[in-house]
Amino acid sequence: MKSPSFLTKKGEDKMSIPNLQVALDHSNIKDAIKDAVAVGQDVDIIEAGTVLMLEVGSEVVGVLRELFPNKTIVADTKCADAGGTVAKNCANRGADWMTCICSATIATMKAAAKEVKEIQVELYGDWTYEHAQQWLDAGINQAIYHQSRDALLAGETWGEKDLNKVKKLVEMGFKVSVTGGLNIDTLKLFEGIDVYTFIAGRGITQAEDPAAAARAFKDEIRRIWG
Amino acid sequence: MKSPSFLTKKGEDKMSIPNLQVALDHSNIKDAIKDAVAVGQDVDIIEAGTVLMLEVGSEVVGVLRELFPNKTIVADTKCADAGGTVAKNCANRGADWMTCICSATIATMKAAAKEVKEIQVELYGDWTYEHAQQWLDAGINQAIYHQSRDALLAGETWGEKDLNKVKKLVEMGFKVSVTGGLNIDTLKLFEGIDVYTFIAGRGITQAEDPAAAARAFKDEIRRIWG
Repeated sequence: MKSPSFLTKKGEDKMSIPNLQVALDHSNIKDAIKDAVAVGQDVDIIEAGTVLMLEVGSEVVGVLRELFPNKTIVADTKCADAGGTVAKNCANRGADWMTCICSATIATMKAAAKEVKEIQVELYGDWTYEHAQQWLDAGINQAIYHQSRDALLAGETWGEKDLNKVKKLVEMGFKVSVTGGLNIDTLKLFEGIDVYTFIAGRGITQAEDPAAAARAFKDEIRRIWG
Repeated sequence: MKSPSFLTKKGEDKMSIPNLQVALDHSNIKDAIKDAVAVGQDVDIIEAGTVLMLEVGSEVVGVLRELFPNKTIVADTKCADAGGTVAKNCANRGADWMTCICSATIATMKAAAKEVKEIQVELYGDWTYEHAQQWLDAGINQAIYHQSRDALLAGETWGEKDLNKVKKLVEMGFKVSVTGGLNIDTLKLFEGIDVYTFIAGRGITQAEDPAAAARAFKDEIRRIWG
């Protein structure tokens, strides 16, 4: 997905074009699959959200795998413990990646990492860069930077301090996904930052035309990072 | 479950007799329900574990509610976000309590607390007593102190520092559940501490006779705290 390097302008470091990930955070499998079918071909990564998995179980991961053999499928388990067992269950359903909560122990993350292709660390609460370095040292190089849904509902927004944390994680060597209240208008906040993936849930699935919304996200991502 | 106060000896603060909770951390509903039926009447609290919920969904909570109308049913979601939605889904299935991970925001915990009777905070990673006070201030007074399964596998055990943290949380006003590698022999480590609940998973469900194992836990708890 990288442009050839001779296209790089102004001598700046070449950035990849960020991926687009749809988060399926429905509370029933029917609506989740309906939206997955509507937008799946227009996104790069399809996520079985935590709400969905806790409600319907990992079967939904298997359905997504079957429907989208060529897309990356993420099981957003936010795993805190028993990493090996949770990851094995997700891998059995065909998940490529799985998430662990940042407060999980390194042992949990390592156990999970043995079973799926990649682990993504979900950043909630008071994680530190020292923790982040431990994850890198353990071979885990994906992190997901959030505005939590509940914090957004409480009036929080993306700000300079968030962007600086994302930049710092990228500099440390993480592939950083960002998520939380994203829409077409907020993408430009991240201009100049080597974001790995933008994750949108309701911003896509609750649009009047979810497929058109996914394409609009992709177009705006290409406009800014292409 | 408290003994009448005139039975209190030596003028010491009266402690309640700790509850016994069985954690169902199976990866399929059949084995989980089989073990629940075997031991349910011998425990106080029945937990649909995180591994189980991620694998089979919240339906299992509804089955437990139906089978055990008079027991406390916990949905161990380790919820990190979207607290209101996750809690509503659990409450719809009949869960009494639900767990939130300690790195969740206060907004997430509060949103969840509106939907179920009680929230329990799962202590993983580098939580602080300052965080703990914020949970109390938000009206959340149950905490679960862990030895993580993966840390236990890596050789960690219950030690003085764990016991001191449990004591401190009790002094702060928490009802503290403890869990992680517990067996009949380790219960006595907690003697003199006002533990609210002992949570055992495999220590009960993987015993040759799970019901006998649950009764042995109860007997030892009564011997020490009765």
